[in-house]
Amino acid sequence: MGTTHLTTPLVVIDLDVVDANLDAMAAVRPGDALRSHVKAHKCTRLAAHVAERTGSRSFCCATLREVEGMVEAGLGHDLLLANETLDAVRLRRLVASAASVGARVTVAVDSAATVEVAAVASSGGPLAVLVDVNVGLPRCGCAPSDAGAIADLARAAGLHVRGVMGYEGHVVGNPDRSWRSEQVAACMERLREAHGRVGGEVTSAGGTGTFDLHDWVGEVQAGSYVLMDTAYEQLGLPFRQAAFIESTVVSVNEHDGYVVADAGLKSFGMDHGDPMVVGHRTFFLSDEHITIVPSSPLRVGERMRIVPAHIDPTMALHTHAAIVRGDDLVDVWPIDLRHW
Amino acid sequence: MGTTHLTTPLVVIDLDVVDANLDAMAAVRPGDALRSHVKAHKCTRLAAHVAERTGSRSFCCATLREVEGMVEAGLGHDLLLANETLDAVRLRRLVASAASVGARVTVAVDSAATVEVAAVASSGGPLAVLVDVNVGLPRCGCAPSDAGAIADLARAAGLHVRGVMGYEGHVVGNPDRSWRSEQVAACMERLREAHGRVGGEVTSAGGTGTFDLHDWVGEVQAGSYVLMDTAYEQLGLPFRQAAFIESTVVSVNEHDGYVVADAGLKSFGMDHGDPMVVGHRTFFLSDEHITIVPSSPLRVGERMRIVPAHIDPTMALHTHAAIVRGDDLVDVWPIDLRHW
Repeated sequence: MGTTHLTTPLVVIDLDVVDANLDAMAAVRPGDALRSHVKAHKCTRLAAHVAERTGSRSFCCATLREVEGMVEAGLGHDLLLANETLDAVRLRRLVASAASVGARVTVAVDSAATVEVAAVASSGGPLAVLVDVNVGLPRCGCAPSDAGAIADLARAAGLHVRGVMGYEGHVVGNPDRSWRSEQVAACMERLREAHGRVGGEVTSAGGTGTFDLHDWVGEVQAGSYVLMDTAYEQLGLPFRQAAFIESTVVSVNEHDGYVVADAGLKSFGMDHGDPMVVGHRTFFLSDEHITIVPSSPLRVGERMRIVPAHIDPTMALHTHAAIVRGDDLVDVWPIDLRHW
Repeated sequence: MGTTHLTTPLVVIDLDVVDANLDAMAAVRPGDALRSHVKAHKCTRLAAHVAERTGSRSFCCATLREVEGMVEAGLGHDLLLANETLDAVRLRRLVASAASVGARVTVAVDSAATVEVAAVASSGGPLAVLVDVNVGLPRCGCAPSDAGAIADLARAAGLHVRGVMGYEGHVVGNPDRSWRSEQVAACMERLREAHGRVGGEVTSAGGTGTFDLHDWVGEVQAGSYVLMDTAYEQLGLPFRQAAFIESTVVSVNEHDGYVVADAGLKSFGMDHGDPMVVGHRTFFLSDEHITIVPSSPLRVGERMRIVPAHIDPTMALHTHAAIVRGDDLVDVWPIDLRHW
């Protein structure tokens, strides 16, 4: 059975391609040398599949909701919230529920305020922290020179300081591999300096675009490699497109030479530009539609698969994914880690 | 009580501003001269509020899910699905459930295939159609010269043909009011030609950017005027920003002069560009973060309100909205018409 009985727009994930991507990643970063990031797919069933195939049970999360959902799904072997949170109430509740099922939670901290939140939350159970270090991306993370003081604050507050993390997000998407490699080295100089002040057994960095350019950190955080998108496709990585938005042609304008399908701005993360219709040309998108200039005739009612430009915000728009192997529908998985 | 106990990122809607926007619209297009579009907010509670304040009970929907949800919410006085659907199974089920509660459903058709779907669905109960006419936007809609034949097909299939619609979506966002006005006239020439062939009592067109530029159609379809966004703000319309994304500052980088808050690409529709942080400058967004160059000091834990660039896909990302009047939280409404 295929997917044509399911409502479009529809996330379709080819598990054969996912498996090839997981294997390609594991060939370079086996087991816990890769901390797979659930933010890219927000699906606990897919996370469980990653764990089963690779043997790695350490995961990265971007939101409290993602950590909560992973704990609820029994995937709490080693969860890192790789972002700062100021929500002491929810973090405390999460820590308590994790403790009740033996899940392990670590959170990023980069300031006295975030250490204080972690300290309050740790009254609910054991909570570890990583000191988040700014390695060049204009986002979170303390200066390397401040990392030791933050670790001291955390230890004084009774928190277990596991080590350091730093995300070179300004580097991961550049198509020039040698530039990426040089930049990773420079970023990791900053993280290494911070680690010298902080200590701890965990050194964590990276992303899909730099997964094989790290020679110092113990673990790489990557998520997009599982499903991929057109932005990462330009980098020539050993990962292929595993996720598509299936869409139905709803209107054909033969006179002006375009067709319209039912997947629009509300079906795709648009920050990396337009999605790609394989074999045709994307004209533009509106809320519920994509207008396509076809290379070959398309008829009303026909289905097509469209490749997202940015997988993470695309998955965040859909409630479920059709899981296929080739042409066969094998399951439907909820995208259950959405929202905050 | 304010909103600070609610998790961020958080949709906040100021109902005082909504009311002012509804009144400004009703001053020009009172009652059913305005068919309010729920796609811009996807919230039945807000739709009910619109109906209560304006006395208008005719609504526009963009998806089957929106029509289904409006019927379930008892808001089915006169619902127009202003897009084509090929899903005969779901449309038939919807028509049957609408019939069981006395709701009235009309769908857009622009081809023999979409007429056939409507005809199949009408075995579930009464179903009317509007012939959707292409008035210049490269999207759905038949040529004016084909509209009569499609109406004939529909009538032959036993459907009630209520009239015509045509959306000048390529016109509504242009800041030049006189250009918009000229273009509306040209577009409505096409719709008028089609109406001559189709007949029927309904003539429906327009959007927020052209709400007061129509002198021929019986009703204007508009949605963004209720909540507004930065894109429409540039047009100098008599509507103000009523919706914001409330966000928490999670990191402050004093050395480099920026701050990071917890609302990113997954909190905003990004197709119209970056959202606007009132009083500060948006630097860039990543999945869960906005990096801001502040004009005045911001501290970790502080909350701020950010204006979406495009309200429709922004609302589609959130489960609920905090409803305020000024500084007071008055309710929390589910955004219950999301997905498809």
